[in-house]
Amino acid sequence: MKGEKVELREMWAVVQESAGGKLVLRELPIPKPKRGQVLVKMDYAAINPSDLSMLQGTYAHKPEYPVIPGIEGSGTVVASGGGMLAAMRMGKRVSCTSTEGCGGTWAEYMLSSAMHVVPVNKSIDAKQAASTIVNPLTAIAFMNITKKSKEHALLNNAAGGALGKMLVALGQRENIEVVSVVRNQQQLESLKALGAKYVLNSSEEDYCEQLKAVADTLKLHLYFDALGGRSTDDFVRCSPEESRIYMYANLSEEKSSFDPRTLLQQRKEIRGFFLGNYSADQSLIKTLGSIKKVHRLISNELKTDFCEEYGLADVEAAVESYSNNMSKGKILLNCRMEKY
Amino acid sequence: MKGEKVELREMWAVVQESAGGKLVLRELPIPKPKRGQVLVKMDYAAINPSDLSMLQGTYAHKPEYPVIPGIEGSGTVVASGGGMLAAMRMGKRVSCTSTEGCGGTWAEYMLSSAMHVVPVNKSIDAKQAASTIVNPLTAIAFMNITKKSKEHALLNNAAGGALGKMLVALGQRENIEVVSVVRNQQQLESLKALGAKYVLNSSEEDYCEQLKAVADTLKLHLYFDALGGRSTDDFVRCSPEESRIYMYANLSEEKSSFDPRTLLQQRKEIRGFFLGNYSADQSLIKTLGSIKKVHRLISNELKTDFCEEYGLADVEAAVESYSNNMSKGKILLNCRMEKY
Repeated sequence: MKGEKVELREMWAVVQESAGGKLVLRELPIPKPKRGQVLVKMDYAAINPSDLSMLQGTYAHKPEYPVIPGIEGSGTVVASGGGMLAAMRMGKRVSCTSTEGCGGTWAEYMLSSAMHVVPVNKSIDAKQAASTIVNPLTAIAFMNITKKSKEHALLNNAAGGALGKMLVALGQRENIEVVSVVRNQQQLESLKALGAKYVLNSSEEDYCEQLKAVADTLKLHLYFDALGGRSTDDFVRCSPEESRIYMYANLSEEKSSFDPRTLLQQRKEIRGFFLGNYSADQSLIKTLGSIKKVHRLISNELKTDFCEEYGLADVEAAVESYSNNMSKGKILLNCRMEKY
Repeated sequence: MKGEKVELREMWAVVQESAGGKLVLRELPIPKPKRGQVLVKMDYAAINPSDLSMLQGTYAHKPEYPVIPGIEGSGTVVASGGGMLAAMRMGKRVSCTSTEGCGGTWAEYMLSSAMHVVPVNKSIDAKQAASTIVNPLTAIAFMNITKKSKEHALLNNAAGGALGKMLVALGQRENIEVVSVVRNQQQLESLKALGAKYVLNSSEEDYCEQLKAVADTLKLHLYFDALGGRSTDDFVRCSPEESRIYMYANLSEEKSSFDPRTLLQQRKEIRGFFLGNYSADQSLIKTLGSIKKVHRLISNELKTDFCEEYGLADVEAAVESYSNNMSKGKILLNCRMEKY
């Protein structure tokens, strides 16, 4: 590694020049960590729905362009800018998330706050480590919201993907009924095979009646809505009084609609859930606690299924494949350019 | 009055046979109060937006048909079914609201829980007394929500009506900035004449820019939305982060829509405000306190402008006139049949 530090000045990184623009591979100087920062030599980077939103320019925090995309990944800390935490992370294999203004994970190297890298133990391989943050923390946050609300059930739609499977598994362990809404019979059966008790197929004609029936039976008051559009309306209409709908993505890319009378008369609420905001509200200790929990569970409930791997040079193809079918399995970018 | 008790067995009442059905005048037996109930000989009944919703069958609590409509009014308690509160109300001039399952105010007599009638003092005439509950309590509730949220400003749309004027007046007294959204220049000028500082005309081309500017300046986080439809979208879009939108009616009769991404990334919420639910959450003492406050203010800020008066027999015409222009002034039904 010493050799690398001296010889390497340049790295390959995916770059986007403007919101919605093309992704190109560029040779850039390897950034130098400042105090409190570390440099991660990346192994793998994940592609999440929030990355797609970032690429389209519809993400919460607008980056300064040009930008290196990529919210999470895995790698090894190869340089520290000083400070206790950064020094402690030196040489460690880590899961990492990007730090605002520092560039993302879709590159050979990523500069990051030392607080955004979490050591992983040997039982977790580099691929699993690349997806230990966004989805698992989201699943755990949904569980925590449910418990804090003194509820015993939650609904999640767009449940065919990695997050949906994690929620089903966590629900079984934590004694929370998880209602999964999927879009086709195949997804339904694959969740049933995992032991999911309540799975609804929103393509079925009597979906709304099924939803209403299960909502009444379970006294289901919490709806995590990743789709928006028509599905928000379904939840406002079919849920029992005093239900809360949490928007956490807008995969339908359509505006949500609802009947205001139903909302006000039945004391319902529509809120947003955004992991970035939620995490900022939790203390660092709590977040680290959650991440440790993720690592304990990662070989079981929170294991992510990967279906494809692309090199950084093929990032456009990777993004397209993921966009076309987000629930078929996670797609990873292999950040090690020497292999390609 | 003793004479009446003995001789009168029948009363005239407006009756609706089914949701959305015609309003007809019927002769019905005068109901007998049970323990805890009183019989009110009605003077005047108000027509509120919630009455229209009730007539259409879109109101919160579905009544059992046939039903006597009418949510609030004024009159004199002429019989008590026993119990301390009912006995105390005997012979009193009162403001009153209907009690579920007992029939409404659009009749010569109304049966009601003694808790739903509030004595009024001599300075308040029977017409003013007919509108001391729904609008004034709503205005006070909006103020209380604002203070409880530690906010210093609120927005109200459909602000051309009685509620809008009350809010402007209460805001001046309680040091809360009230932003009023109206639909035409005439309403704008009439609110400005009352001393309203912030009035926006939603028909103007640059309404959204004006809204955004005033929202930023005032750090405006609370939006009371009586319209729904497009206006909810405007509020979600133009409000600063962490804003809350309270739906309290659906006068546009259109579904509300919004961009889920904006909601979740900017930590916004959409809730309902429904006076019936809100009041049920407050203790009786608090509600009585609010009503006393209303009575103190009624000769000033909370005075309602009346523009028309109809007899019970002309109820269809009254409802039509109100539906056609809800902000021109309150319409009263005169419940005293002997006059017609």
